Amino acid sequence: MWLPLLVFVGLLLLYRWYRQSHILENLSDKYVFITGCDSGFGYLLAKQLDKRGMKVLAACLTEKGAENLKKEASSRLQTVMLDITDSESVSSAAKWATDIVGDAGLWGLVNNAGIGVPMSPNAWQTKADFAKVLNVNLLGSFDVTVNFLPLIIKARGRIVNLSSCCGRLAVVGGGYCPSKFGVEALSDSLRRELRDFGVKVSIIEPSGFKTEILLLEHHLKAVGHLWSNLPSQIKDYYGEQYYQKRELSY
Amino acid sequence: MWLPLLVFVGLLLLYRWYRQSHILENLSDKYVFITGCDSGFGYLLAKQLDKRGMKVLAACLTEKGAENLKKEASSRLQTVMLDITDSESVSSAAKWATDIVGDAGLWGLVNNAGIGVPMSPNAWQTKADFAKVLNVNLLGSFDVTVNFLPLIIKARGRIVNLSSCCGRLAVVGGGYCPSKFGVEALSDSLRRELRDFGVKVSIIEPSGFKTEILLLEHHLKAVGHLWSNLPSQIKDYYGEQYYQKRELSY
Repeated sequence: MWLPLLVFVGLLLLYRWYRQSHILENLSDKYVFITGCDSGFGYLLAKQLDKRGMKVLAACLTEKGAENLKKEASSRLQTVMLDITDSESVSSAAKWATDIVGDAGLWGLVNNAGIGVPMSPNAWQTKADFAKVLNVNLLGSFDVTVNFLPLIIKARGRIVNLSSCCGRLAVVGGGYCPSKFGVEALSDSLRRELRDFGVKVSIIEPSGFKTEILLLEHHLKAVGHLWSNLPSQIKDYYGEQYYQKRELSY
Repeated sequence: MWLPLLVFVGLLLLYRWYRQSHILENLSDKYVFITGCDSGFGYLLAKQLDKRGMKVLAACLTEKGAENLKKEASSRLQTVMLDITDSESVSSAAKWATDIVGDAGLWGLVNNAGIGVPMSPNAWQTKADFAKVLNVNLLGSFDVTVNFLPLIIKARGRIVNLSSCCGRLAVVGGGYCPSKFGVEALSDSLRRELRDFGVKVSIIEPSGFKTEILLLEHHLKAVGHLWSNLPSQIKDYYGEQYYQKRELSY
């Protein structure tokens, strides 16, 4: 009669112990630096980790974004202005973080900042359109990673890079998919080269989440701009109808 | 006695007919534009297609490369100076080609030009090192493709992009693998967007071929340069021994 019950309780305790062994301890000692905290995943993650008691260093592109976040977070959370396409901004943010984390180092870096527009047939884009997205998503993430690396190695920390399902499947033209394919390559070579320093590298590949990157009006505006600046020869190949239909398909 | 022989000869003729139906006709009417013909695959392909009777438009980065190629080719082959990282150079090469091909359009474009160095741990590179490789391999190929597109569409032609086995597996840090991952993404979105225009897009993924991109002294020089410019903190993490061993492993 009692034996099955004892076995059941024993298994329950074992399961609880196993579950709890996966829960991270001393969260309040750990520093995490997150880029792109103005909105979307960055904003949500910063709030979430702050709530759990971590020491969040949140990088924002705009003053407004930083103010919004501060209102929603505890006094532990600190913000810094960061444009990841600007090398000086990146290195000054790294210096700022170095002063804060001290000997503890950086437990985690989340390369979240990224842009999506313009997305369109490649033929509609100039080199500058294409390069703009690469500069943020790929070159920016590279620059932040390399600048923060000494802090991460010090803590035997981890790097989390925001890739995308578009990092595996090139569903649309423009710089977005190539930039995310690039993030996959960068993350994989980083993963291998940092393993011996005890640093882990992970990627996240979100599909369709309702963050600002999928905001319809941004995409319509960007594609409308491309279409109106298109050389007439290419415009004729596609035709006004194609453009109208494309607009409707969003 | 005669029946098996007749069947055998019949099958032989059928096979011959099938084989010949795959051989491209009127090669001498067809224009092909190839980038990076100074050496390696570009140089070999230009010579090969010229020999077969095609009208080869060979883009070279250096005067010396163009002269070398001309010596080895027929008078049909024409060369043009092209730095694919320079937008003006790309658009002037496109104008040059437009004047030559006229209404025939461009039967084929081969985006072959590319660079490999520096290849090293990501931590050893600056943003400029990383960007340099992307600028040639990914942005350059994009720019050439978009500028030549009207000519290719006119001929319902084809685009062949030189990717790499490193476009699937990130075996080393730096810009090379991300640039080739990016070429895979770019090519796939181009393939789909140009199908309706009758334009085909293919990629080639070479592994280890003995072209200049694998020239040992280039790599040693580039890595030596990176190592000597490394901040002492990162240098200490790796140690002189790591660098020496790395040099030997080439």
